[in-house]
Amino acid sequence: MVLLRREIGDVLRDQRNRQGRTLREVSAAARVSLGYLSEVERGQKEASSELLSSICSALDMPLSSVLREVSDRIAVAEGVLVPDTVPAELSDTVFSAA
Amino acid sequence: MVLLRREIGDVLRDQRNRQGRTLREVSAAARVSLGYLSEVERGQKEASSELLSSICSALDMPLSSVLREVSDRIAVAEGVLVPDTVPAELSDTVFSAA
Repeated sequence: MVLLRREIGDVLRDQRNRQGRTLREVSAAARVSLGYLSEVERGQKEASSELLSSICSALDMPLSSVLREVSDRIAVAEGVLVPDTVPAELSDTVFSAA
Repeated sequence: MVLLRREIGDVLRDQRNRQGRTLREVSAAARVSLGYLSEVERGQKEASSELLSSICSALDMPLSSVLREVSDRIAVAEGVLVPDTVPAELSDTVFSAA
């Protein structure tokens, strides 16, 4: 079963890593505890709507963009969407190897 | 503040109404209590990821489609997306008036 909290967690963690920021930095900016953010990122806790909005703000990402990315990932997992682009982790590899 | 649970609730309720189904029918199909589904639809309760998946299955809608619709609605509320189509509720009115 595809679980929303796991996909949200993955998208938030990827975004934080792309920004090169630590759990400590983002949790402080979002005014949530480090443990809470960590559990949300690992898909172990359902983020409340209010705290999800705070975390998105701290990452300077509109909530709609996070959900769009989550929706696309779930669509791939559901077989509804076949990705026609090179995944970011692969293209990163290509670029850093070049 | 745009709250995820309110937008999810609106999308689920709209979908149920479009299918002409009652809270009782959908809650039974999703194996959740009628009160729980009602609170989720009104944006008063955060649906757990597991029960959100069950409700989507009961509505025969992929979770990704629900989230895509939610993302689009939030994008409009955030001013990120300007809708270029006639909203369903307006086009329904036009067609039923014709």
